[in-house]
Amino acid sequence: MKPAPQWPRVVIVGGGFAGLAAAKTLKQAPVSVTVVDRANHHLFQPLLYQVATAALNPSDIAAPIRRILRHQANAQVLLGEVVAIDRARRCVQLTDGELEYDHLILASGATHSYYGQDQWEESAPGLKTIEDALEIRRRVLLAFERAEREDDPERRRGLLTFVIVGGGATGAELAGTLTIVARKTLARDFRRIDPRSARVVLVEAGERILSGFDHALSESARRQLERMGVELRIGQRVTAIDASGVELGQERIEAATVIWAAGAAGSPLARSLGVPLDRSGRVIVEPDLTIPGDERISVVGDLMHREQDGRLVPGVAPAALQSGVWAARNVRRRLEGRPAEPFRYRDKGMLATLGRAAAVAQLGRWKFSGYPAWLLWLFVHIVFLIGFRNRVLVLIQWAWTYFTYDRGARLITGTWSARPAQLRPPGRESTGGASLSTAKPREGLG
Amino acid sequence: MKPAPQWPRVVIVGGGFAGLAAAKTLKQAPVSVTVVDRANHHLFQPLLYQVATAALNPSDIAAPIRRILRHQANAQVLLGEVVAIDRARRCVQLTDGELEYDHLILASGATHSYYGQDQWEESAPGLKTIEDALEIRRRVLLAFERAEREDDPERRRGLLTFVIVGGGATGAELAGTLTIVARKTLARDFRRIDPRSARVVLVEAGERILSGFDHALSESARRQLERMGVELRIGQRVTAIDASGVELGQERIEAATVIWAAGAAGSPLARSLGVPLDRSGRVIVEPDLTIPGDERISVVGDLMHREQDGRLVPGVAPAALQSGVWAARNVRRRLEGRPAEPFRYRDKGMLATLGRAAAVAQLGRWKFSGYPAWLLWLFVHIVFLIGFRNRVLVLIQWAWTYFTYDRGARLITGTWSARPAQLRPPGRESTGGASLSTAKPREGLG
Repeated sequence: MKPAPQWPRVVIVGGGFAGLAAAKTLKQAPVSVTVVDRANHHLFQPLLYQVATAALNPSDIAAPIRRILRHQANAQVLLGEVVAIDRARRCVQLTDGELEYDHLILASGATHSYYGQDQWEESAPGLKTIEDALEIRRRVLLAFERAEREDDPERRRGLLTFVIVGGGATGAELAGTLTIVARKTLARDFRRIDPRSARVVLVEAGERILSGFDHALSESARRQLERMGVELRIGQRVTAIDASGVELGQERIEAATVIWAAGAAGSPLARSLGVPLDRSGRVIVEPDLTIPGDERISVVGDLMHREQDGRLVPGVAPAALQSGVWAARNVRRRLEGRPAEPFRYRDKGMLATLGRAAAVAQLGRWKFSGYPAWLLWLFVHIVFLIGFRNRVLVLIQWAWTYFTYDRGARLITGTWSARPAQLRPPGRESTGGASLSTAKPREGLG
Repeated sequence: MKPAPQWPRVVIVGGGFAGLAAAKTLKQAPVSVTVVDRANHHLFQPLLYQVATAALNPSDIAAPIRRILRHQANAQVLLGEVVAIDRARRCVQLTDGELEYDHLILASGATHSYYGQDQWEESAPGLKTIEDALEIRRRVLLAFERAEREDDPERRRGLLTFVIVGGGATGAELAGTLTIVARKTLARDFRRIDPRSARVVLVEAGERILSGFDHALSESARRQLERMGVELRIGQRVTAIDASGVELGQERIEAATVIWAAGAAGSPLARSLGVPLDRSGRVIVEPDLTIPGDERISVVGDLMHREQDGRLVPGVAPAALQSGVWAARNVRRRLEGRPAEPFRYRDKGMLATLGRAAAVAQLGRWKFSGYPAWLLWLFVHIVFLIGFRNRVLVLIQWAWTYFTYDRGARLITGTWSARPAQLRPPGRESTGGASLSTAKPREGLG
């Protein structure tokens, strides 16, 4: 249905799970939908760690928002960066223009939070976007390359140490997968270092990892990770991070690669709404997902703070999907003169994978772990991965990785050479590269 | 075979076709091989334009050099940037160290040449590396996004104009593929612009495109491209390039996207050898591929200038492969006390594709074009694409693209938002984004 000029304008900020679900829900509605995102692609975020660990390609888990909504005639897609919401003038302000709305669905998600220690970001990047994933991939692969050229055993140890801060799903997945990368994928590719000696440390400040899961499953995940070789530091808090390592109180761990998987904070856009936010910057919404005192604005997905039965609706993909659909339905109800209805999150269960054939699953009363949980994880993620083409490619790549341990996307891209000082500390004599082939003075040639 | 300490050290600079071929040829030789490259991956350069046009992923056409040489025990791989060759001390200087050699095989390839107009590079990037391809992909996709938000018809026209400078194989491939992207892939994805109206201009200063081919095939390629909708400017020279277009003498073409596929120049490393170079900076080698007066250094691949039967050995993949193998064999012969042998390039034919079912092929006396040439091209490129895994994935993606015209890798990554001024000219009022949904003043809502 082509939008008529007099149709109400629904602006959706964010093309993630929540935003896209909202847009699709309005397909048959007599409204003009505009989806604004600063990326041109929708990202299947639950698999982002697989890009960071070189198993998948960016485009395997990302698809142009434009293509996804191609056949929805009442929707248009804009590439643009939203900087604020102007409620008085009912418009969304972009870096380079503005966009008026009759209804606004805010689905701009979450970003990393360093708990006020923003200087940690440079040394410990987080994992939210394709760019983040490629940066982590670059750092991980480069650490092995640098270790191969490093003579000093202590510095080499630091290059082969990977610290992951935060024992939620992302942290656990990264830790498990990195041990596999080191112990299997790269095992035979180097001549001087043994990648299998790499140390993967997972730090969790709370009393257990995967705290969203049942206690027994947290414990199972801990055991599975330990069996894979991950060093767990549970109940320990990172007190400092710099370019060469982290501090856990009195203890210092030298590590060239630190990944931040700890805090999440609501998108800064929320502040411009002028309504109460929770401690993490998420918007505390009304039962119908609108903001207090403004029925024209709904907040959904990771940016939404909504309690149900005394617990926060979790920041997971199913909650984002459901809230996006719900907010869109409420917009439609209002436009039809019917009352909005309160949102109810239906928990369909939780899954986390830890690596090859290792996972935990919690479906209501069903709790299981190991191989069956991993198979379920595999199935669910393939089914929900958007786009037939992606699904086939991902399946083939996963099968390949499963049987061979090989990871295809092991490319270092970007500008590593712009920082030669990091490859070798300034002021040191000789080089790893040279000493490799100068083990013995050469004599004349035949 | 693990290298013994007393084995001669063969250093190979560059992990492209020539360098890798040389390394593999030395697999059974009693030498210690070191391959140095500033990228961690070998690149299947003939398919790079497919990454630039969003059909393939970077890792489909690139594989870690380390993995390729994993099973060659006498070879090690170093990630490093070579800045000069010190012939007196027989060592290769890196940004961060040095590497001694007994034999050096220089295979550092070619880079773009802007014929002294280096300021053109920013507006007209070339296509040699994965990073180049991603930058071109970003510019092409972003141009359509910007056009969708542009109100001014003239500026929109400029955003939808793509100029490719240089009518060799890369230029012709890019031009043909870009018309398909605009006319088929993106055709239905936009609401305000019609991507099919995009203009693709191919500029060639010489008297014909694909000048390495027979006259009849050049002519056939020209006709095929014209039929696809490419605007050809043959015998016209680009006299100026800036951020908003190009000049061909008196004529100006407004174009936001300009791609440079014209000049190639030998890697700057060649200069440090202190031997005669040709006008393009390539090393004029002896018949056995060594440099004049130094039997320890061979130059192969695109950096080599070698005439045979009055013609230059072309800068194509088969010539790179053959010269790499030959130089390595000559190293081995010398080490065994036998004389080096002169290189002879065996021309197995030439192929260039122009898009879907369009190509030209020249195999000795056999010359053909169109569908059969395209099928041959497909076959040859799949066969030579390194790594079984890549081959399967590429086949699937090509089949998908062939039947659906869809291109999976349509991601804009990197920092477009860092340059908002380019998205919208400063000083202009209103915005495309806003006007999209403010076509009519809004009334009250139901």
